[in-house]
Amino acid sequence: MGVGYSSCSSRSLSFPSSTCSFSYCPTTSNSKTTCTFSDKSHSNHLLFKPTSKFLQTHIRKLAQKTIGKAPSSAPFFLRCGRVVEPMETQKGNDFLQKPSFDPHSIDQELVQKIAYDALVWSSLHGLVVGDRNSQRSGKVPGVGMVHAPIALLPMSFPESHWKQACEVAPIFNELVDRVSLDGNFLQESLSRTKKVDTFTSRLLDIHSKMLEINKKEDIRLGLHRSDYMLDEQTKLLLQIELNTISSSFPGLSCLVSELHRLLLLQFREHLLLDPERVPRNNAVNGFAEALAKAWTEYNNPRAVIMVVVQPEERNMYDQHWLCAVLKEQYQITTIRKSLAEIDATGELQADGTLLVGGEAVAVVYFRAGYAPTDYPSEFEWRARLLMEQSSAIKCPSIAYHLAGTKKIQQELAKPGVLEGFLENKDDISKLRRCFAGLWSLDDLQIIKDAIERPGLYVMKPQREGGGNNIYGDDVKETLLRLHMTGNQEDAAYILMQRIFPAVSPAILMRDGVSHRDQTISELGVYGAYLRNKTKVIMNDNCGYLMRTKVSSSNEGGVAAGFAVLDSIYLV
Amino acid sequence: MGVGYSSCSSRSLSFPSSTCSFSYCPTTSNSKTTCTFSDKSHSNHLLFKPTSKFLQTHIRKLAQKTIGKAPSSAPFFLRCGRVVEPMETQKGNDFLQKPSFDPHSIDQELVQKIAYDALVWSSLHGLVVGDRNSQRSGKVPGVGMVHAPIALLPMSFPESHWKQACEVAPIFNELVDRVSLDGNFLQESLSRTKKVDTFTSRLLDIHSKMLEINKKEDIRLGLHRSDYMLDEQTKLLLQIELNTISSSFPGLSCLVSELHRLLLLQFREHLLLDPERVPRNNAVNGFAEALAKAWTEYNNPRAVIMVVVQPEERNMYDQHWLCAVLKEQYQITTIRKSLAEIDATGELQADGTLLVGGEAVAVVYFRAGYAPTDYPSEFEWRARLLMEQSSAIKCPSIAYHLAGTKKIQQELAKPGVLEGFLENKDDISKLRRCFAGLWSLDDLQIIKDAIERPGLYVMKPQREGGGNNIYGDDVKETLLRLHMTGNQEDAAYILMQRIFPAVSPAILMRDGVSHRDQTISELGVYGAYLRNKTKVIMNDNCGYLMRTKVSSSNEGGVAAGFAVLDSIYLV
Repeated sequence: MGVGYSSCSSRSLSFPSSTCSFSYCPTTSNSKTTCTFSDKSHSNHLLFKPTSKFLQTHIRKLAQKTIGKAPSSAPFFLRCGRVVEPMETQKGNDFLQKPSFDPHSIDQELVQKIAYDALVWSSLHGLVVGDRNSQRSGKVPGVGMVHAPIALLPMSFPESHWKQACEVAPIFNELVDRVSLDGNFLQESLSRTKKVDTFTSRLLDIHSKMLEINKKEDIRLGLHRSDYMLDEQTKLLLQIELNTISSSFPGLSCLVSELHRLLLLQFREHLLLDPERVPRNNAVNGFAEALAKAWTEYNNPRAVIMVVVQPEERNMYDQHWLCAVLKEQYQITTIRKSLAEIDATGELQADGTLLVGGEAVAVVYFRAGYAPTDYPSEFEWRARLLMEQSSAIKCPSIAYHLAGTKKIQQELAKPGVLEGFLENKDDISKLRRCFAGLWSLDDLQIIKDAIERPGLYVMKPQREGGGNNIYGDDVKETLLRLHMTGNQEDAAYILMQRIFPAVSPAILMRDGVSHRDQTISELGVYGAYLRNKTKVIMNDNCGYLMRTKVSSSNEGGVAAGFAVLDSIYLV
Repeated sequence: MGVGYSSCSSRSLSFPSSTCSFSYCPTTSNSKTTCTFSDKSHSNHLLFKPTSKFLQTHIRKLAQKTIGKAPSSAPFFLRCGRVVEPMETQKGNDFLQKPSFDPHSIDQELVQKIAYDALVWSSLHGLVVGDRNSQRSGKVPGVGMVHAPIALLPMSFPESHWKQACEVAPIFNELVDRVSLDGNFLQESLSRTKKVDTFTSRLLDIHSKMLEINKKEDIRLGLHRSDYMLDEQTKLLLQIELNTISSSFPGLSCLVSELHRLLLLQFREHLLLDPERVPRNNAVNGFAEALAKAWTEYNNPRAVIMVVVQPEERNMYDQHWLCAVLKEQYQITTIRKSLAEIDATGELQADGTLLVGGEAVAVVYFRAGYAPTDYPSEFEWRARLLMEQSSAIKCPSIAYHLAGTKKIQQELAKPGVLEGFLENKDDISKLRRCFAGLWSLDDLQIIKDAIERPGLYVMKPQREGGGNNIYGDDVKETLLRLHMTGNQEDAAYILMQRIFPAVSPAILMRDGVSHRDQTISELGVYGAYLRNKTKVIMNDNCGYLMRTKVSSSNEGGVAAGFAVLDSIYLV
């Protein structure tokens, strides 16, 4: 359990297999006042090592007291990781002390001008999504389009953390590849989850079948996105999750960066911001390059790249951008098929070639298949198995998919686990530095703490896409309920340290309307990885996605409507 | 009056001040059989020169017989112009004899593929319009967008006629400029129209005021589009109208050409068409260049280009493309203002500078103001006058606007009139070659013929934009009604030879759906003209617009929903 940093300050507290320190701050979102409780007090609190039995009794009492009661008091900051001494504060964080650029200070008339130009540019340059108010907008391209929800201006972000996130992307790529090769690790780590989570169980079944037939994936392609938040208290860049399937927005994120650069250029006299401090974003080109190189490795000039899509997809233009680059720059044909269509028209040839609708498929690129709702019947599972059995390059393979689950993320954060996959100590240290506190629900000490201080934790099921996480008092109630019922359902979740990023003013654009709000942001850095047997053909970070959401909103899915696409302004 | 061709074959028939020949064909749209009546018979018919009194009586009798009766028989082709002997058929027309490419022969599955790609490309590249089903789509950019209605593939068009249309564009530009300088010609030609057409009357009032104060427009900017149809019988490229105000689609037409080139490239194995035969379209760059050069001539680096817009505009993205080029290539700011806004916030400085919302305006570019509905109150007329009085470059000036009216088009087609404006005989001959038969309604001989054969004529009021023309039996009934009432309302109209272009199969895309239909097409060639006193700074043809409409539809406005944007495939 725990974050397991390789070096800890003297104030770090040792539990069996955990290395944590805590401090408290009331979440007064706009206040800069911090730490109403001293570090010491928690240290003492946490030095107390209760027995399992004590904890179980304690939790049961809490359960009896709390269930059905009013929500507890405001959440507190939880710092998990090594304590950062003032002198250790990273370079580039100075901006946090500086009065950083406040978009709310721009007068409304100028905001209207910038917003108008942003809307026009978005419309002319394909920064669009399907309008949820339009019935056919997820089915047919070209109808019911609306500009993508965007931040009007880029969000300040420390250059050092940006570089850190870019630097670790290839290491995470390599880690995923290594983990994917350790079938037993995946199966064992997920064995408890398997019992209670049908979706993970089905994925594991396919994975088992591949292990049984000793299926080898010589050519392995990963298009990942590692998501981070910058914890305000510790100034640490902490990983939220690592997406190994269907990493979204490589297309639209590039456009947002380009738009922001243009707006800063155009309104430079008013905004006094340097467009060059918005990093150029090459996500779509990087992903397309990786897909094209994978296609080349497959070595069948007549084969296509197949995008596995949901039957309705309002974020289709993000996907189309990638296919447009593949077509225009690489002359590679892509086809789009739902799992049901693949089941209906797919077949395997004797040599393992996957044919769908009569076309040989070189690369299967999943933009669906990551959620239980993508498999409404056995047909979809059959399609997934069919693809997995084929010689087509899967992006991701079932093993890559499993390597990106929350449970594996939590297992990898355990002390000593990374060392089983990576040799380079520097690399290991760089990854660990990004790990937030992660625990399974068999850690009773953490359960107790989470029940007492639910605002410091997030409960995460094994799901991709927004809307599934549990926050605040719901954490407490869910933990207590799981404990009372006493079944194994707890294995469906992990607990994660809740990260409290700085709250910043922003101007959000949606449905043609701008509004000012307090927001928090999440940075995703894309990584592309391609290898053929022993040869690593590509292992790059490629571009980024900033998502900014209203600070009162817990969830992060832009397409789900809680957040907007953003870019970063390096400070 | 007539078309006044400089050279006529022996079969041409002479009327006082008219040089016409006629032949008849039943309009069996798909039939290639022609001429059920011999040329001779009309020659004889038309050689009979009735007196005015006879005609009036004849028309009255016809009126008594016809009003309220069933529609007359099918319309006939009317050939007006010199008779083209078979040996005279222009080079490049051979395609008409060849089995030309038939998009209806493409199997439906391939059509679906091409259509999907076309829709995606349109969405990503700003080939969009506001969706008429979306309430805010004409008010706010970025919401309620839908792909522009387009033809799926380019329309075959003879290269010789294409070159002809390009060649005359600069001559028409020059003609408009010359005509605009002859205030008396404009006032006199439109004097009868003025009495019955309030809109033209208001324009003339402004024009008169400018004449009275001897207002000089040293810098004159014209962004024109001359529209043509290719008459199937005569193989003549005949001008429909010359737009001197608000020539639409310079932005979107470029995108359609680009899309069609890409589709031909992408599906070349199936379609076997050469993408290079779709001419590159530089309309938006040409117009932007002209506007930028005009802005430079005005010589106030802080001044803006103002686009006069309708309060609601679903075709806004076409306009935005032009502004985008101005901003990105020339760093020129554009503002968009409705006539009401200009009235509310506009003012003239002592030196003639036009200020709107506090900003000095270098160029006024009209994308509104061409229709009576653009002037719902006196405020809008006041705004128009204000702009005209200013030193801003008007595109168009009131004189350029009037020079593009139907009545002036008809006056210019009278024999000897062009010679008053242009010196070069070659140029004059080239323009005349494009003139269709045009008559005012004081030509009783023509009125009589139009009542008898209404299918051969179109009645046109002094209006821009689709939906105003009168066709078929409505021509007869309107003419008879005008004659019966005996007022001067007839002066609001001109009569024009109805042109019968070839009917061609096409695939039209609208609202995400493709459908096959029989169509006719209209080619517009853009022209840009800029001069400063004696110096002609720019006089170019720049790009083109093909519009294709279902052959059963009489009107041509794409934005009005009757037609689609197209490009040409040179044959």
